[in-house]
Amino acid sequence: VTARSAAFAAADWGTTRLRLWLIDADGGVLGEFRSDEGMATAAARGFATILEEGLAQLGAPPGLPVMVCGMAGARQGWVEAPYVALPADLSELAGRAIEVPGLPRRVLILPGLAAAASQEAADVMRGEETQLLGIADALGASPVTVVMPGTHCKWVACEGGVVTGFRTFMTGELFALLSRQSILRHATGDAAADPGDAAFAEAVRAVIDDPSALASGLFGIRAAGLVFGTGQAPSASRLSGLLIGAEIAAMRDRADRVVLLAQGVLGKLYAAALEAGGVGFETVDADAASRSGLFQAARKAGLTGDQATRAGAKPA
Amino acid sequence: VTARSAAFAAADWGTTRLRLWLIDADGGVLGEFRSDEGMATAAARGFATILEEGLAQLGAPPGLPVMVCGMAGARQGWVEAPYVALPADLSELAGRAIEVPGLPRRVLILPGLAAAASQEAADVMRGEETQLLGIADALGASPVTVVMPGTHCKWVACEGGVVTGFRTFMTGELFALLSRQSILRHATGDAAADPGDAAFAEAVRAVIDDPSALASGLFGIRAAGLVFGTGQAPSASRLSGLLIGAEIAAMRDRADRVVLLAQGVLGKLYAAALEAGGVGFETVDADAASRSGLFQAARKAGLTGDQATRAGAKPA
Repeated sequence: VTARSAAFAAADWGTTRLRLWLIDADGGVLGEFRSDEGMATAAARGFATILEEGLAQLGAPPGLPVMVCGMAGARQGWVEAPYVALPADLSELAGRAIEVPGLPRRVLILPGLAAAASQEAADVMRGEETQLLGIADALGASPVTVVMPGTHCKWVACEGGVVTGFRTFMTGELFALLSRQSILRHATGDAAADPGDAAFAEAVRAVIDDPSALASGLFGIRAAGLVFGTGQAPSASRLSGLLIGAEIAAMRDRADRVVLLAQGVLGKLYAAALEAGGVGFETVDADAASRSGLFQAARKAGLTGDQATRAGAKPA
Repeated sequence: VTARSAAFAAADWGTTRLRLWLIDADGGVLGEFRSDEGMATAAARGFATILEEGLAQLGAPPGLPVMVCGMAGARQGWVEAPYVALPADLSELAGRAIEVPGLPRRVLILPGLAAAASQEAADVMRGEETQLLGIADALGASPVTVVMPGTHCKWVACEGGVVTGFRTFMTGELFALLSRQSILRHATGDAAADPGDAAFAEAVRAVIDDPSALASGLFGIRAAGLVFGTGQAPSASRLSGLLIGAEIAAMRDRADRVVLLAQGVLGKLYAAALEAGGVGFETVDADAASRSGLFQAARKAGLTGDQATRAGAKPA
């Protein structure tokens, strides 16, 4: 493993973290750098400084080009890469990448996607579109709904490599706020949701049966603790079940084929919720999705192979 | 106005504040004391100390009895007044009051109510039951649903002075958490919800039409800010409309007659939401409800009139 064979560097730069890889011309990973310096930190200390530090740690040669996805392209990020409006052909993302000016190497930032049919239906993503590009082959040509768990979970309608619609749910953020900062913290404590808990599956089904059970069921978690002495683990599981169940209830117009982009504990919770709701699904491993999408975009943008050498030789 | 004619003192002791009144034998108010020393503060500094300070400021005579409602009767409060299970006859609340032991005067704490049919349907209230007692005459004998806005809004089914069911919504707390601490803060800023804003009524109707629009609509508030530059006031109004609309959607099994216990700005928001949802309602002024309920309970418990003298003369 040597930096000499690197064709480009790939960066997934989100709100709370940066992941950086050296990639060879075949998409192979030559090195990885991880940091907690997400968008907020980077905006204060300088994106270029942090990126160069990471590249130096990886032994990246001067002039090696970099393909970036995620919140670095937000308005409050490094350089804004304006949203691409739906319907969005994932293969055209690379062509909409924005080059960061005034750097000693080429750095391209991929755009996010925006649903902008109306104020009520507005939605945005930054980073997930690159994951989708990375798994586009696995998604195939037919209509599919991709579930992408996270702090803000996305349900994305894709067909033949084109994103036709998507919806964001604040589930992860709501769980954190409610279980740590609301009155429900007395019921949940620090407990994590357990996908195997009966309270989880019951809550999922209750909200699918009646979506209004989300609003009417939250305080009941605290009340059950007071009246029945319900424990912290089932309380946290019930809270999570209500929130994820509300996603399934809202996405009843999903495609017949559902693909879950599985990521660790959250992936297990969503798998259990889909099972509880009787929704059939396949799983696709999320781990390499961003990196694979960045590689495809880099190749398309001419950053890899011969182009990489050219790009690397060109001072910006 | 002199403290000599006081029959008893009435205290509404909630989570965040204490209101204390001197009341004569006819229910007339002789003096009022307000403090921010709610349950949390009082648990640290001593309920008895704070109560005696308030009574001293009002010039209450030694031995004057006190009727208390609210969170002072919670398990983590002063002395626990165990919940009364549904169905609960409001006229029997006084008989279930708990006397605080070891005090130089009689202090009775009214119980709250608990819905305990199942863990999923569990719910609790402390304080609202006393407001309901205070407006019981206005509610009459027929089935009625009482909407009680607040940090935790209650929808209460009453019939002939008996509470037969209720549901708590964390609307006020959710609005505060989402507009101040979630990603939606970037959209709402410090703006208050405006009941006259078209975005408010539209959001109310959207969630009544489809209750799953609560979960799927939250992040859209942020997205509309990014994509359309939607302002803070309509963003806050939309958030509030989604949350209050979810209450109306969940309470579709309400009684034909709906009574709104109107309280300031929140009362105006709920009135506008009910109107937007096409729900007919009457309003009852909330201001005197707690005091009136405490007076009725005190009379029933024998704290007023001759009994007050007797109680006041009796060292505990």
